[in-house]
Amino acid sequence: MAFLKVVALEKALEIIDSFSPEPVVEMVPLEESLGRVLAEDVVSPVDVPPFDRATVDGYAVRAEDTFMASESKPIRLGVVGEINAGDTAEIELKPGNCVYISTGAPLPKGADAVVQFEDVNREGDDVIIYKPAYPSLGVMKAGADIPKGGLLLTRGTRLTFKDTALLSAVGFPTVPVFRKPRVAVISTGNELVPPGEELRAGRIYDINGRAITDAVRQLGGEAVFLGIARDDRDSLRELIEKGVQCCDMIVLSGGASGGVRDLTNSIVGELGEVYIHGIAIQPGKPTIIGLINGKPVFGLPGYPTSCLTNFTLLIAPLLRRLLGRRNEIRNAKRKLAHKVFSVKGRRQFLPVKIDGEKAVPILKGSGAVTSFVDADGFIEVPEGVEILEAGEEVEVTFFG
Amino acid sequence: MAFLKVVALEKALEIIDSFSPEPVVEMVPLEESLGRVLAEDVVSPVDVPPFDRATVDGYAVRAEDTFMASESKPIRLGVVGEINAGDTAEIELKPGNCVYISTGAPLPKGADAVVQFEDVNREGDDVIIYKPAYPSLGVMKAGADIPKGGLLLTRGTRLTFKDTALLSAVGFPTVPVFRKPRVAVISTGNELVPPGEELRAGRIYDINGRAITDAVRQLGGEAVFLGIARDDRDSLRELIEKGVQCCDMIVLSGGASGGVRDLTNSIVGELGEVYIHGIAIQPGKPTIIGLINGKPVFGLPGYPTSCLTNFTLLIAPLLRRLLGRRNEIRNAKRKLAHKVFSVKGRRQFLPVKIDGEKAVPILKGSGAVTSFVDADGFIEVPEGVEILEAGEEVEVTFFG
Repeated sequence: MAFLKVVALEKALEIIDSFSPEPVVEMVPLEESLGRVLAEDVVSPVDVPPFDRATVDGYAVRAEDTFMASESKPIRLGVVGEINAGDTAEIELKPGNCVYISTGAPLPKGADAVVQFEDVNREGDDVIIYKPAYPSLGVMKAGADIPKGGLLLTRGTRLTFKDTALLSAVGFPTVPVFRKPRVAVISTGNELVPPGEELRAGRIYDINGRAITDAVRQLGGEAVFLGIARDDRDSLRELIEKGVQCCDMIVLSGGASGGVRDLTNSIVGELGEVYIHGIAIQPGKPTIIGLINGKPVFGLPGYPTSCLTNFTLLIAPLLRRLLGRRNEIRNAKRKLAHKVFSVKGRRQFLPVKIDGEKAVPILKGSGAVTSFVDADGFIEVPEGVEILEAGEEVEVTFFG
Repeated sequence: MAFLKVVALEKALEIIDSFSPEPVVEMVPLEESLGRVLAEDVVSPVDVPPFDRATVDGYAVRAEDTFMASESKPIRLGVVGEINAGDTAEIELKPGNCVYISTGAPLPKGADAVVQFEDVNREGDDVIIYKPAYPSLGVMKAGADIPKGGLLLTRGTRLTFKDTALLSAVGFPTVPVFRKPRVAVISTGNELVPPGEELRAGRIYDINGRAITDAVRQLGGEAVFLGIARDDRDSLRELIEKGVQCCDMIVLSGGASGGVRDLTNSIVGELGEVYIHGIAIQPGKPTIIGLINGKPVFGLPGYPTSCLTNFTLLIAPLLRRLLGRRNEIRNAKRKLAHKVFSVKGRRQFLPVKIDGEKAVPILKGSGAVTSFVDADGFIEVPEGVEILEAGEEVEVTFFG
């Protein structure tokens, strides 16, 4: 066991960074790519539109044929064909001729403008034009919308419906995205009962199992909840081994008692290596970080707010890195709504709720479920600071 | 066929509202409820914690036994038992006694405070206490975090990981949510090719199929893309009938040509009833709205920006209603970045991009894919207005 001691948060992040796997790229069908994170920059393999295209219904003309047209001296062109959307433009337009064309259809060779129906008169096989058309009138040139080779989307983009539509527009059937990291989630503690079961005396419902599982999913990862381990070596060891087999990392959240932490520590030490046993922040002292078969294992505190704060500080950045979303902004500046006291010599993280331009401290204590439910995130109170005054600017880090 | 004419946007929304089905409630397991929309207010069926609970490791005492304790005259209590998290508290505490207790464990009868390990000395079976404990020290009372019967979450909440954790904390194994509306999506147009296929002359890749499908999914609905219908009666009719069978509503997006609209109109009229054929807005004139077997059918314009604008105006509100998310805010006030011109007598919707406090008009024309990709939403230019000046306040409606 390498460290086995309380380290600074920065040191913990450094260690996590050092043993984290690289993001894995996979190809998924475009129709399953919504919400996934792009693993490569995407450039267009085609011109959009792929041809000079009519943007109105009307007649494709050689613009120069119309230059002399006026209300008093209209010109007359012979209609020599018809092109609809989806047709190929086989015709070559000769001077003095025009072609009936519908919106979206390709311009015939020789044509460089489309005169709208509303602006002409049809007389038998002729069309009467009353004003000049300039070249490109009623036309979208090939590549004018998206040029072949143009950069469309950059690596790290979480794909919205606008992005998938754009990828569809240039014809990608599959998309390179970052593989979702798989996270095994384990709750520990004799007092925990899964929702739906009877709450016998002394028991409480498990909270962290659900919170971590769904926080991972909300971030874009895959989570496998393995259940609640009793405070005994066999039960806990079995679930940890299961997690190492099925997933890329394992996240445990401690029961309330200190005994579970010792148990987790000892089992991770047996199966792999414990790197950190305690981080010099409050909450988070009891946090355990280790590696088993190259897979990170995290033991988080049992209190929901402490658990989520440490998840946000330690695990979410790793997940975002694996998802290729390293640079996402997860914080906002606000003014503190009222004075808070901290303990000197402790680097403390306090839950806060965002209320407009203010950050309102939630002071229910980390034992309360409602303190993390009410809070949007947390602020840091540095080690040397005992009081933060109302109105001070603070940086809020959002949970998750 | 009832209306078959161009109506105002408000009239169209009224008609859509009149024939829209009511939201359907279904129960889903808690572990599948992330991102779903709550169909009922939820009150807690239990107290959290369910019992008076130790918040520190230490000794459970009768506070009054310690009132006389001081550094110079400490008091001595006899340790008569041990309670760990998950245990039941069988012991009844008599005056002069205390019980070893761990964080999260239930207080024994008679005890009303927990003195931390750090503040006492253990001597054999006795504990020496140096300062008074007040009642409730080191204790979270039953129901102090969440009282039984307390309102937890309201109908219409889209569940985040904090919400599912809260539902777990009070023990719900299943959750009432709104059933996801199922939307059949059909693209029409001879010129359309699905991504991945060869782009023959005169063809373009389908955009709207992907855009609508994923916009529905992003809103929280289910979408089934039925494919591209050719501009012929049989192909289109077959897909529309398929949509009526599999889904709650059908959304078609027109090919570029006007012929498809006539075809859609005629088929919807055959199979059901066309209520609207044209809305007095730009873009959106060619929009068709009808009912087949009580299921709404929408025919949207083919240009991507027009298509998405009309989807946002007409279909998204219906989807949000079915999802129980009727009151979600989908717009923001911004200052117009530069002057724009509109056509008098036309109620126009212009795509804009949000840039900080500004709304930047996208003036590429609705034929461009990039105009809806670049835009975040759109602004309305009322019928009587020809010019909006730079700096004017505009309301941006976000796409989707």
